[in-house]
Amino acid sequence: MKPDLNFHRAVLKKIEHYVHRTPVLSSSTLDKELNAHIYFKSEHLQRMGAFKMRGATHAALNLNVEQRAKGLCTHSSGNHGQAVALAAKSLGIPAFVVVPENAPKIKVDAMRSYGAELIFCESTQAARERTAHEIVERTGAHFIHPSNDRDVIWGQGTAALEMLEDHPQIDTLLVAVGGGGLLAGTCLAAKAFNSKIEVWASEPELVPDAKQSLDSGHIVPSPGLPTIADGLRTSLGDQNFPIIREHTCDIILVSEEEIKRAMKWTMDHMKQVIEPSAAVPLAALRKEPQHFKGRHVGIILCGGNTDLANLPF
Amino acid sequence: MKPDLNFHRAVLKKIEHYVHRTPVLSSSTLDKELNAHIYFKSEHLQRMGAFKMRGATHAALNLNVEQRAKGLCTHSSGNHGQAVALAAKSLGIPAFVVVPENAPKIKVDAMRSYGAELIFCESTQAARERTAHEIVERTGAHFIHPSNDRDVIWGQGTAALEMLEDHPQIDTLLVAVGGGGLLAGTCLAAKAFNSKIEVWASEPELVPDAKQSLDSGHIVPSPGLPTIADGLRTSLGDQNFPIIREHTCDIILVSEEEIKRAMKWTMDHMKQVIEPSAAVPLAALRKEPQHFKGRHVGIILCGGNTDLANLPF
Repeated sequence: MKPDLNFHRAVLKKIEHYVHRTPVLSSSTLDKELNAHIYFKSEHLQRMGAFKMRGATHAALNLNVEQRAKGLCTHSSGNHGQAVALAAKSLGIPAFVVVPENAPKIKVDAMRSYGAELIFCESTQAARERTAHEIVERTGAHFIHPSNDRDVIWGQGTAALEMLEDHPQIDTLLVAVGGGGLLAGTCLAAKAFNSKIEVWASEPELVPDAKQSLDSGHIVPSPGLPTIADGLRTSLGDQNFPIIREHTCDIILVSEEEIKRAMKWTMDHMKQVIEPSAAVPLAALRKEPQHFKGRHVGIILCGGNTDLANLPF
Repeated sequence: MKPDLNFHRAVLKKIEHYVHRTPVLSSSTLDKELNAHIYFKSEHLQRMGAFKMRGATHAALNLNVEQRAKGLCTHSSGNHGQAVALAAKSLGIPAFVVVPENAPKIKVDAMRSYGAELIFCESTQAARERTAHEIVERTGAHFIHPSNDRDVIWGQGTAALEMLEDHPQIDTLLVAVGGGGLLAGTCLAAKAFNSKIEVWASEPELVPDAKQSLDSGHIVPSPGLPTIADGLRTSLGDQNFPIIREHTCDIILVSEEEIKRAMKWTMDHMKQVIEPSAAVPLAALRKEPQHFKGRHVGIILCGGNTDLANLPF
């Protein structure tokens, strides 16, 4: 997969009736603090509350009529499950989501409200994969991986593409990395738009596998430790890692405390409800501001699905 | 005070370099639920986090050079104090804010961060007024009332004016009423823009004084009971009541539980951090949707200064 502006614009054109073109926010207080210009792409205001809607929608739209009729399948306890459920609902086709039995009720309810058929299983990666495989065998539904899928990667990249179209002065992008779909898509969009744009990433110190992968040149599996940025516990994949390796400047590690502070600041000062994963780029900006001084930095607020009764600060 | 579109536009022109032109948000989920089109004017994203910035700024800008040099004065434990402090900072002049000794630390810190001189007093209306009077006598500072002041009323009306300019299809406005400054200013803007626009208001059942005033034709003092919508505990004044009486259709009363539910919904679904007062119009829309069916309703999210460690739900 190579950066290709015309192709990427066609992807955006394909999904634009199914996703919001989210606004870009800024804070003069923060810009003064960091001595830089920070642009917040508000994917927490995306449909179902996260950028995941883009990739799932793109993957679904690339199916032909017969494939669509058999439905979509994934396994997820989080935003990707909701995205697949809502994408299927938008297209009027079935969705089968394999859910670990310990998944938060709030997310289970959301998937159910989008009309997905939920299949519960043990809370292990093996059980999730086995159950999803059985569903696909039985129904013929199309399996959509949350991050290691070409259509998903192209779809996630449209968030950065929109931000760059709206603010072409942006010279740096900084996104959180978990499974690698958003980061790889952002790399493709950035380098296609302007090859001089720098792409940075950040992840929790508790799950430093993307940084270790970038440094070592091969995929290091995530230790899967329970960071509050629960969307970022997963490992990179063979589809997205080569793109990330080619185009990413560096990955900044941040502590749980730094994530909490950035999340609280965003809610207190920007009045935006975000989930912990969405605070990871701001935490990185504040930890290592020297890389970004004087630059125009676009960051992605990747999601807003958080339980207000259990804020981590 | 009569509706006057040219004059109101001149007020907006005067303050526009000191306040944000805030965005207008919407939710297709809510529109479907209510069978109406709802527009949320996002004054929680205003400077210092509330529409109060508009009135305080307008009042300050109307002072001449000698008056400005002596500074601004008010008494407040809430958003108006922060607005006066920040307006003074923007103009490079002193601010004296009388603060009841039991005021929340978070608001005291904000006023201090804007450079205001804080004068603490007993937590009674009499002590607050006496102390402010002493400050004005001693310093010659200009006292700015939070709601019963002509310049403040014109200033607050600019929020509705901006919303109507951006979305001229709006045929109904619905705002929370406390001291009456926002409601009176909204009446003036609405009727000047299009005399057919209906203006509604809502307030907590615990402090139904504006409804009682409208029904009886004279100002009924607020019982001052501790509603969670703490910005709405105050009474109407002789400057704003005649405007409200002439132009307001009706005032809808909502319970504490209805306010909490509307606040939680706004944070969960629109991902916007608002204070309880800002949820009062949505609570009213949901309680009595029959008045608004099929209409284009503009509501004002009046502020976002809330303590996330003590959410009321």
